[in-house]
Amino acid sequence: MSENGKEVSSQAAKTESSTQTPSHWESIHSKPRDQLKKRSSRKKAFKILQEKMLKLQCVFMDHFLQRTSQQMQCLPPGDQQCTRASRKQEKKMGFLLSQIINHIWSNTVKKLKFKVPPLPCSDSRCGIKAGHQALSSWQTGQPRPRLGDFEDAFADRTLSKRGTGIYEFYHLSFQGYEAYQTDKYHQDKNPSLTQCDMNFLDEAQLQYSDWKGEPSLREELASFLTHYCKAPTPLDPENVVVLNGCSSVFSSLVMVLCDPGDALLIPTPCYSGFTFSSYLYSKVELIPVYLESQVTETNKYSFQLTVDKLKLTLTQAKKKGKKVKGLVLINPQNPLGDVYTQGSLQEYLVFAKKHKLHVIMDEIYMLSVFEPTVTFHSILSIENLPDPNMIHMIWGTSKDFGMSGIRFGVLYTHNKEVASAMKAFGYHHSVSGIIQYKLRQLLQDKEWINKVYLPKNHSRLREAYSYVTKMLEDLKIPFCNCGSGLFVWINLKAYLNPCTFDQEQILHQRFQDKKLLLSSGKSFMCIEPGWFRLVFAEKHPQLQVAMGQFCQVLAEHKKGETTEQQEKPTGTDDVDGCLHPVAPDSPLSLAQAPPQK
Amino acid sequence: MSENGKEVSSQAAKTESSTQTPSHWESIHSKPRDQLKKRSSRKKAFKILQEKMLKLQCVFMDHFLQRTSQQMQCLPPGDQQCTRASRKQEKKMGFLLSQIINHIWSNTVKKLKFKVPPLPCSDSRCGIKAGHQALSSWQTGQPRPRLGDFEDAFADRTLSKRGTGIYEFYHLSFQGYEAYQTDKYHQDKNPSLTQCDMNFLDEAQLQYSDWKGEPSLREELASFLTHYCKAPTPLDPENVVVLNGCSSVFSSLVMVLCDPGDALLIPTPCYSGFTFSSYLYSKVELIPVYLESQVTETNKYSFQLTVDKLKLTLTQAKKKGKKVKGLVLINPQNPLGDVYTQGSLQEYLVFAKKHKLHVIMDEIYMLSVFEPTVTFHSILSIENLPDPNMIHMIWGTSKDFGMSGIRFGVLYTHNKEVASAMKAFGYHHSVSGIIQYKLRQLLQDKEWINKVYLPKNHSRLREAYSYVTKMLEDLKIPFCNCGSGLFVWINLKAYLNPCTFDQEQILHQRFQDKKLLLSSGKSFMCIEPGWFRLVFAEKHPQLQVAMGQFCQVLAEHKKGETTEQQEKPTGTDDVDGCLHPVAPDSPLSLAQAPPQK
Repeated sequence: MSENGKEVSSQAAKTESSTQTPSHWESIHSKPRDQLKKRSSRKKAFKILQEKMLKLQCVFMDHFLQRTSQQMQCLPPGDQQCTRASRKQEKKMGFLLSQIINHIWSNTVKKLKFKVPPLPCSDSRCGIKAGHQALSSWQTGQPRPRLGDFEDAFADRTLSKRGTGIYEFYHLSFQGYEAYQTDKYHQDKNPSLTQCDMNFLDEAQLQYSDWKGEPSLREELASFLTHYCKAPTPLDPENVVVLNGCSSVFSSLVMVLCDPGDALLIPTPCYSGFTFSSYLYSKVELIPVYLESQVTETNKYSFQLTVDKLKLTLTQAKKKGKKVKGLVLINPQNPLGDVYTQGSLQEYLVFAKKHKLHVIMDEIYMLSVFEPTVTFHSILSIENLPDPNMIHMIWGTSKDFGMSGIRFGVLYTHNKEVASAMKAFGYHHSVSGIIQYKLRQLLQDKEWINKVYLPKNHSRLREAYSYVTKMLEDLKIPFCNCGSGLFVWINLKAYLNPCTFDQEQILHQRFQDKKLLLSSGKSFMCIEPGWFRLVFAEKHPQLQVAMGQFCQVLAEHKKGETTEQQEKPTGTDDVDGCLHPVAPDSPLSLAQAPPQK
Repeated sequence: MSENGKEVSSQAAKTESSTQTPSHWESIHSKPRDQLKKRSSRKKAFKILQEKMLKLQCVFMDHFLQRTSQQMQCLPPGDQQCTRASRKQEKKMGFLLSQIINHIWSNTVKKLKFKVPPLPCSDSRCGIKAGHQALSSWQTGQPRPRLGDFEDAFADRTLSKRGTGIYEFYHLSFQGYEAYQTDKYHQDKNPSLTQCDMNFLDEAQLQYSDWKGEPSLREELASFLTHYCKAPTPLDPENVVVLNGCSSVFSSLVMVLCDPGDALLIPTPCYSGFTFSSYLYSKVELIPVYLESQVTETNKYSFQLTVDKLKLTLTQAKKKGKKVKGLVLINPQNPLGDVYTQGSLQEYLVFAKKHKLHVIMDEIYMLSVFEPTVTFHSILSIENLPDPNMIHMIWGTSKDFGMSGIRFGVLYTHNKEVASAMKAFGYHHSVSGIIQYKLRQLLQDKEWINKVYLPKNHSRLREAYSYVTKMLEDLKIPFCNCGSGLFVWINLKAYLNPCTFDQEQILHQRFQDKKLLLSSGKSFMCIEPGWFRLVFAEKHPQLQVAMGQFCQVLAEHKKGETTEQQEKPTGTDDVDGCLHPVAPDSPLSLAQAPPQK
């Protein structure tokens, strides 16, 4: 039952019958005696080639390990020289390798007229599959071996230095594992996978899965996203990466696209979880593009994101010497609860292309647009994207299906290199096979989702939203009128006296003392004090209690403020500063759980 | 159904009835009119205290953000100055804070005779619960407030700088979430959790869980480990951390204990996955303690680990200026398949204490000791550990229960600070609530595990082991005679000509070409070429095919080598170096799947 053994036996069995990649030795046994001598010379030639290839792999691995240990020594002394050094070394190595390849190519490969078994992939950037490609390209006798584009790898600018390093290390580390995953044993082609039983369990679910996500789930997701994002052409399962939650996807993506100290633009107020994710592993700075509530000539509606604001922030950041690698957008927006028009989206993307910025688009609320008058445009729906290779979309079931605890997030990128590099993160962020199976069963049932789940979920959200906003109106509390998401962005400036972030935090604490977990504007990097995010996605009776509590806190706070004004003792201001908690909205923004299937 | 709303309402409800932590306001309403004036002054005093506390929190958060942004600017320019600067700043901050606390303490708290509601925890190192502790300690009127030991925090040497940073950031980031988790809503106390149905599903499983692992699962694990590790005293669920796989546990633990560039000792040959895990996020160097097969006076048996070898390697590392923070041990050992005697274990631990080294003990094969004559001693079984605070044990179900695909790993540490710091990693490495529930159901069924599963699994492993080793003996292939694990460590030097790592890699490739995934010694940092790890945990028919294939490859390789010797062409050595793949044994070392319950 061990995968290894399974591997071993099944693969063995396969090899016997397979014509796809017959081994050299078998090809010999299958041929008449009189050709043996000729073959033996070819055999030699092949052996030379194989050894050269293996040695190339050795050289590369050594170089890589050297670089890794350099990195070790570079920290603390600093990445810079190390990076420069290793870049040089890589260039040298790339040149050396391709020279050698061409040497082998011209002297050896031309002689090989028989089929050779797949070679180990010396180019860490191509993995096993590319090994096969390399092979086939040789068989067709193309002048340029696959390994030639080893050099391109170093010219490539999509992946960060770190991303490339992880990518290389992963492919060199997991070759056997990849071979196993691409050519996996099944006693019989596992028909059970077609049955729609959420609780079905088989051995496969209990064994290591493809770090990128089970192929069957990725196929389902490609079809799911094609359908719900209204993609102009069917999405490619190979561009889908599945990890244990959107925060893991974001963190890993940033690791792959940015080097430590690089920066990303993000319009604020924004979901605070990004701050923790970019701090923990990637050490990438989030530069806020501050949006304001005041409506002016340039600010046609509250918190409007314009290209001018993006430009301004980018220019200032560059002046400060920041390396800005990308733009993070949330659509539907969290905490504003509104969506970007197709027009604005297009503008942002053109801006991003002009400045060679990656676009990380978080669409985790894409199916929580409950207002029929609001039309959501997924980034995957846009035809002729300005720069598809730089577009990366994140989605998950946490909000739209109320399953935050299932730990599932998905990346769709048009960039195959990014998708492949992300695979390395499955080793630490993969999803249980049992969960992958359940999700596939859930997501493939589009009829239930369209006819039962979404209508029900949207009507529930609508009801909760109108109940809460009606109360806010009665309380004369301004809020951003939205039609999507699980929350409303409210303005409590009137309750802050003075209107500072300190006072905002004190009010936030009052809410928490009464067990009301609202997110404060400061935690969302809002530039104006007084804003809070209130999650309304709740059953009515509980929502009633909550809102009653909410009113009580505000009343008491108001009262407290006034009495305090009269009685305020001296010496309370001996410490200055303001609280900037960055609590992810984990406990706050959960959608309704789905009606039981 | 939103957790927030749930939170909101339920907590509200609770607060009404709760006597545990009645809020100040309620305590007023519950008292007769004539005390109102007195109370109002107390109310003021409390408000002053609350605001001071909030401002302390602000100062600390600002300081922390400052440090974070410094770190940003430090990369690439290098951590060093930044670290020194922030250490200074921290000291100053710690001093300032404790001064202010003492000021507040002496001027304000003494006046407070009524119960005050919990304050937000200004000490990022104590979290919500400690907030309550702080409170209670104040009520009992102890002279020293909980926040006083804020200073100790900076004296503390358990956590690395990085670990402390993550720990601080996490607690400041997730206060609301912690409040929610420590005081969670249940419509009714969820009796269903007691039913032993593996497929039972309720809302709670679909919602965000405690990042450290669901309390119910951690309780089960504490009891499970107490039982199977033969702990002298019951283990504490608070010291249990659950993440999505042992590699995540190892990676996170190393993040918490070491700073980038620090090093860990690890006896080799050893499981290669550690290399990838320490590279991806933690940037910690693994320094091999090379063990040899040759039996000598000092090396009583093959690959014996002695304290002398540990000392020697440590001394050499220190000479090179390496900061060695700990020792990684695997028991039962992977790939050797043997176990450490209680005596040796004790020696290693004494050595570690003497040199102030953490001990990371990987016991992932602890229930796969199939040879009745072999006695395994868990590190958790040892009474009077030399330095319990430095001992961290890792276990998971991947191998012992053949469920590598379920992505589950557990840390047991005697160090509460480490356990608490590890919590921060749940945000990116937590286990699905559904899986946590299933695991709890599985692990609590000790009768089935003891009477059905383990005996069956062990007899299967014994059979497979003796079948494989019998064949090895017939082939005159030396191997390490072991009684645990899912693999046997075999010596194929006789098949390497010359006996180099290059040749080892060529043979490894031959195996892989025939779909046999053996791990090569080099990938396990073995100092001698020619060793391979062969996984035998497989059903018999498949094992037969595999071993047949194995013999065929060896025969063909031998033949190839000899013919090659005669015909070896010149000019094949124009590239030098050796391959050092670090493939984790993912596809190789899976235990039998458990008999269906």
